[in-house]
Amino acid sequence: MLNRPDVAVVGAGPVGLAIAWRCAQRGLRVVVHDAAPGSGASHVAAGMLAPVAEAYFGEHELTGLLTASAARWPAFAAELTAATGLDVGYRTEGTLMVGLTADDLAEARRLWAYQQGIGLPVTPLRPSALRDREPALAPRVRGGALAATDHQVDPRRLVPALRTAAERAGATLVPAAVRSLSDLDTDVTVVAAGCGAAALTGLPVRPVKGQVVRLRAPGGGAPGFRHVIRGYADGEHVYLVPRDDGEVVVGATVEERSDTDVSAGAVLRLLRAAVDLLPELAEYDLVETLAGLRPGTPDNAPILGLLPGRPGVLAATGHHRHGIVLTPVTADLIAELVVTGATDPLLAPFAPARFAPPPTVDARSGHDPSGHDPSGHDPFAPEKEHTWN
Amino acid sequence: MLNRPDVAVVGAGPVGLAIAWRCAQRGLRVVVHDAAPGSGASHVAAGMLAPVAEAYFGEHELTGLLTASAARWPAFAAELTAATGLDVGYRTEGTLMVGLTADDLAEARRLWAYQQGIGLPVTPLRPSALRDREPALAPRVRGGALAATDHQVDPRRLVPALRTAAERAGATLVPAAVRSLSDLDTDVTVVAAGCGAAALTGLPVRPVKGQVVRLRAPGGGAPGFRHVIRGYADGEHVYLVPRDDGEVVVGATVEERSDTDVSAGAVLRLLRAAVDLLPELAEYDLVETLAGLRPGTPDNAPILGLLPGRPGVLAATGHHRHGIVLTPVTADLIAELVVTGATDPLLAPFAPARFAPPPTVDARSGHDPSGHDPSGHDPFAPEKEHTWN
Repeated sequence: MLNRPDVAVVGAGPVGLAIAWRCAQRGLRVVVHDAAPGSGASHVAAGMLAPVAEAYFGEHELTGLLTASAARWPAFAAELTAATGLDVGYRTEGTLMVGLTADDLAEARRLWAYQQGIGLPVTPLRPSALRDREPALAPRVRGGALAATDHQVDPRRLVPALRTAAERAGATLVPAAVRSLSDLDTDVTVVAAGCGAAALTGLPVRPVKGQVVRLRAPGGGAPGFRHVIRGYADGEHVYLVPRDDGEVVVGATVEERSDTDVSAGAVLRLLRAAVDLLPELAEYDLVETLAGLRPGTPDNAPILGLLPGRPGVLAATGHHRHGIVLTPVTADLIAELVVTGATDPLLAPFAPARFAPPPTVDARSGHDPSGHDPSGHDPFAPEKEHTWN
Repeated sequence: MLNRPDVAVVGAGPVGLAIAWRCAQRGLRVVVHDAAPGSGASHVAAGMLAPVAEAYFGEHELTGLLTASAARWPAFAAELTAATGLDVGYRTEGTLMVGLTADDLAEARRLWAYQQGIGLPVTPLRPSALRDREPALAPRVRGGALAATDHQVDPRRLVPALRTAAERAGATLVPAAVRSLSDLDTDVTVVAAGCGAAALTGLPVRPVKGQVVRLRAPGGGAPGFRHVIRGYADGEHVYLVPRDDGEVVVGATVEERSDTDVSAGAVLRLLRAAVDLLPELAEYDLVETLAGLRPGTPDNAPILGLLPGRPGVLAATGHHRHGIVLTPVTADLIAELVVTGATDPLLAPFAPARFAPPPTVDARSGHDPSGHDPSGHDPFAPEKEHTWN
């Protein structure tokens, strides 16, 4: 029998496992609960570490967190490999952002100008310089830019490495699902359950479907390109992530759906955009088509910190498209919060309390004058299946 | 222990199983050898029974055989279902042949005129009549024609039905591969091994790769179209075969390759053509991508009958794109040949002897003056691994 744990982590994706690792390193007794570790969004994710390419208009605080986490990645990957002997596929060739047509390039340049304007390292490249870097790019690609600091990691290698590291540091994995937080006998609970956080906490986390296609270079060799390539191709956004073992991840759709069916139209759009940008991909083997569900939030930013009115319960979810890049900073700062009770300033904008409902006129009676939530219950109350829209 | 069989059939695809069934029905002791029944070309095949749509310029004798076999299909399917209780998905809605662009339509019309010219039932349709039959066709499809007698069957249902019928008639299946015909102790051997016939007999059978994509109508319903649709779409040939259970087979490439890898380019071309012709397919689930190898021959026609110089050895292979439609006539006429020794006139043009090598000046010495085959051996001699190009 286990001693009563100090910390229960719900969810053995990268975020949950990394939090467990950090907490165990600091001497806490940690148990991680997941019926199928690594089977969620990370199994589908490409593993881009792209705070620059992912910096969008108006998301200043998120960009800050992405940048801070990406900066931790080299040391994080090195520490993980030192602790486990496992390579996680961390690669530093950088990311090329490209536009296929003049219209695509115009759209891309608006974003690059914004990214440069907030001080991010984006270097526009002439077409000749682009082709010097990646000769396999289609001749009709009109232009591009380099985000040299946007790296990549392989999420399917990351999960077993994090699990090994967490277990070696003393954490225990319980291979079963958690149906209710009240089933956990612990001082602190960290909900890192991705989309599953909604049912467990009432937080406004919704599934955002993403479909990807995995290709493999023929003949067993490495792909014929080295950078991550993110492109606009006739209005379609696509990324191409090459791995040393020959794999190329082509992704990803962003769909407000909760099924994980692979659709003909999505595969068609991804392959068309991929082959338009890099014609040799037509001759690559198609080895996998897959869909997953990202944990999205109303403001597209993660939900990190203590749940109001729920002593000892923390959230580390809602990472949406950014779960892999945000793993190190989430683990470091959530572990710090668990151990010391201190909330790092970086975390403050992402507190769960930002989604607390406004006080109602007649809250005590349970009557909500807005009419939107006839139950009137606190959405953070335990065991409600409640998602906000 | 088995009694010594009268007939050994090598290959438990549709052709081999149907021959075994017919021979067993006529009182012969039959053994069928195959390590993996139904795992060859039939596992990938769409099951179109299309002597009209598949009637190409100059292939008169093949068209005659296709037509004769298609005419046997209704009774063959009915007898099979009566014998086994198994439905084989025989459907009679007919085939629509369509052209997406003006160029596609011009190409298609040349072939339709040829087909009509040799007396085949091809009915041109105005676009409005085309849409009355299949409202899901893209509005920009320029025109089409109906081949009402071109039907379909489901090859993945056909194989278990044929196996059951053959076994109920007394045939025995041996689940092991045949490496050499000399291992078989029998009076008559029928080689129905698809591409495997080349190594067993020296016949000029080569693999012709075909890739297909299987879709499924969302929500568990039937597809939103009823006819088999064969189209030309921006120069790409594609067919769409709807099944009652919601499946749609999209095929097929024709490639002079012997691997069974699925390529990104093939899937892209098939899906693009399919969605161009029937836009709603974009929302269908993509459930399978697959490649198989058809047994092709130098003249694209099957090889049916006695091997010259090999008493008691018959071939029933080389069916290329036509294995499913040709199953009934092949089974009937090969069984007739086995039982009575009589070659039906329909079979005569497809005799293996048409590929016998010309006599050489110095055949007895084993020296081939052409220099193309330094061994000089008879390519029909047993146990040679020998393919002709």
